[in-house]
Amino acid sequence: MDFRKIPNETIRRLPIYLRGLKLLCKQGINNISSLKLGEFVDVNSWQVRKDFSYFGSFGTPGVGYDVTKLVRRISKILKLDVVQKMALVGLGNLGSAIHAYGGFSIYEFEIAAIFDIDPEKVGTKNNNIVVENVSRIKLLKKRKIDLSIVAVPSSSAQGVVDALVKAGVKGILNFAPCYLKAPKKVKIINIDIASDLACLPYYISKARG
Amino acid sequence: MDFRKIPNETIRRLPIYLRGLKLLCKQGINNISSLKLGEFVDVNSWQVRKDFSYFGSFGTPGVGYDVTKLVRRISKILKLDVVQKMALVGLGNLGSAIHAYGGFSIYEFEIAAIFDIDPEKVGTKNNNIVVENVSRIKLLKKRKIDLSIVAVPSSSAQGVVDALVKAGVKGILNFAPCYLKAPKKVKIINIDIASDLACLPYYISKARG
Repeated sequence: MDFRKIPNETIRRLPIYLRGLKLLCKQGINNISSLKLGEFVDVNSWQVRKDFSYFGSFGTPGVGYDVTKLVRRISKILKLDVVQKMALVGLGNLGSAIHAYGGFSIYEFEIAAIFDIDPEKVGTKNNNIVVENVSRIKLLKKRKIDLSIVAVPSSSAQGVVDALVKAGVKGILNFAPCYLKAPKKVKIINIDIASDLACLPYYISKARG
Repeated sequence: MDFRKIPNETIRRLPIYLRGLKLLCKQGINNISSLKLGEFVDVNSWQVRKDFSYFGSFGTPGVGYDVTKLVRRISKILKLDVVQKMALVGLGNLGSAIHAYGGFSIYEFEIAAIFDIDPEKVGTKNNNIVVENVSRIKLLKKRKIDLSIVAVPSSSAQGVVDALVKAGVKGILNFAPCYLKAPKKVKIINIDIASDLACLPYYISKARG
């Protein structure tokens, strides 16, 4: 199968389907229509069908999707069928919130290394992980960790990204509100809280009519 | 102009253009092509042109876009041409990080009220804002605050949303990794860190070829 032409928006929705389907699985639901799945995860049912169509046939008309099979297939497409170790750089308020965040395990993610620059934090234990100095980022390649979360101030973000790239990290989730440069082979996903927030007044004014 | 048919994805990109254009403005750039703007904010130039086309004609062929005019027009479309006051519910690690976050001011957002349930936090001052007990959420209508950020644990999120809806809040940015119910007239945008992260292994494997 050729995955190269799949729109980014479809890829971005796959984890949302996956989480919804895993929850449905836990509720003992074995089969679901695109309509019901769409309602459950708040995506239009035609969009659900269109997204799945990129990967061949997922469902049976009139019967719907087999929930367990679908979980397995989407996990495989997203490479989430194995535990993904990742590093967290920055253990300030945001980094601590991310570390405490309960939403990662559903996708088999595990924070396996934490880096900070603060001497008071380095060496302390957080959920059984010893905080390391950022100078040790370069050892990530040996430890086979190629994913990282960046939760440092904007002023330090580019330096951290450079160090991560040098250490062979291939995927970065960035929280600093700034533009970051990295080689094309490295994928950076920016979490842009302010931009998401900035849509709300538009929607509110539409709702008012 | 009829804005109703504008895709959500276009609306979601408008703040990204707006921030880029504001930065360009500060750098003294008066005119920009869709190609250069696209490069600057990391969006395809055809996508830039398509997004802007929903709002009539923004640019002059061969000349490009007038940066200041574009800032003004996008701000107006997004209703960001006036200061938007918002409430923040939850002052744990995440709430504190959000409060300290520097990325809101570019969109004219101002955190004007903070609520928490912890008696040790209520009454303390944070950046000149006195933390209030969540029981005072009901007074938001009187204070004309109809936007809120929810940064509480999943287990408390629905209760907080119910209180906000009752208080007339029309737009909510939610960080709790759970499905929340609200009347249709209330817009909830979910910041789903795990879902964004969950795309990375896919992109990494693509880059490996």
